[in-house]
Amino acid sequence: MNIQVIAIGKTDSKALALLISEYAKRLGHYVNFEMLWLPDIKNTKALSEKNQKLQESQLILKKVKPSDHLILFDEKGKTYSSVDFSEHLQKRMNSGLKQLIFVIGGPYGFDESLYQRAQEKISLSKMTFSHQMVRLLVVEQIYRAFTILRNEPYHHR
Amino acid sequence: MNIQVIAIGKTDSKALALLISEYAKRLGHYVNFEMLWLPDIKNTKALSEKNQKLQESQLILKKVKPSDHLILFDEKGKTYSSVDFSEHLQKRMNSGLKQLIFVIGGPYGFDESLYQRAQEKISLSKMTFSHQMVRLLVVEQIYRAFTILRNEPYHHR
Repeated sequence: MNIQVIAIGKTDSKALALLISEYAKRLGHYVNFEMLWLPDIKNTKALSEKNQKLQESQLILKKVKPSDHLILFDEKGKTYSSVDFSEHLQKRMNSGLKQLIFVIGGPYGFDESLYQRAQEKISLSKMTFSHQMVRLLVVEQIYRAFTILRNEPYHHR
Repeated sequence: MNIQVIAIGKTDSKALALLISEYAKRLGHYVNFEMLWLPDIKNTKALSEKNQKLQESQLILKKVKPSDHLILFDEKGKTYSSVDFSEHLQKRMNSGLKQLIFVIGGPYGFDESLYQRAQEKISLSKMTFSHQMVRLLVVEQIYRAFTILRNEPYHHR
């Protein structure tokens, strides 16, 4: 199974981009992993929040194949412990999926079209973190999941 | 009111340390803010998890004054949305506290002595993140809280 993380816009902070790519590299030892940073929507200042969300979601949907399993990170999503998340990931891998895509929204979240397409929603926290920082949390959590499944010492139970 | 964040050990990743100090600097515009990275416990490989937790907690307790209000980040803590957290912080500031201390545990959490001393426990997420990454989440969240209280555009409601 391939795992892809999709987000809109490049990661502004070099330090953050570096940390994210470190985890992505480590993840590559366990699974076919790819991060897809889609280009920013232009002229967002001239757009309503609703319109920005719509354009971002359309951009993301163009990258999704019919067979892909889509998981959105969303504040209204299901919460998991890291161990539960790793078991959930294992189940998805066992189900014969070709590709699992995790999607990180922009500052205003997702358009309804993306909610309709997605199979699952996961919430990282009741708290809001910067959507750029969420990228780091997501790759770290997927990496952690694999170390849990492999019984490696990264995660302390 | 002063706000202090205490954690054990320096932040290993330079990129992470840079991000943390950026938020700490921004926070300094709103409040007397200080981060206290206590030295690592030596020879942890020779210690049981329980002993490491004990020594770490003793080190932290030495830094705490009787009048300090202590909040631990702990997986069994209360969860807040960012807006609720900002209101909670406001209440603490209104109560005439001299110093509020947030404590981030090591990889194994806290010793019972620290649980006894602390007034509150807050959980960032059901998921576990690296305890070094938690430092970034904590400073970002305190920063976010102040931008919410000041009605500044950093947080999108």
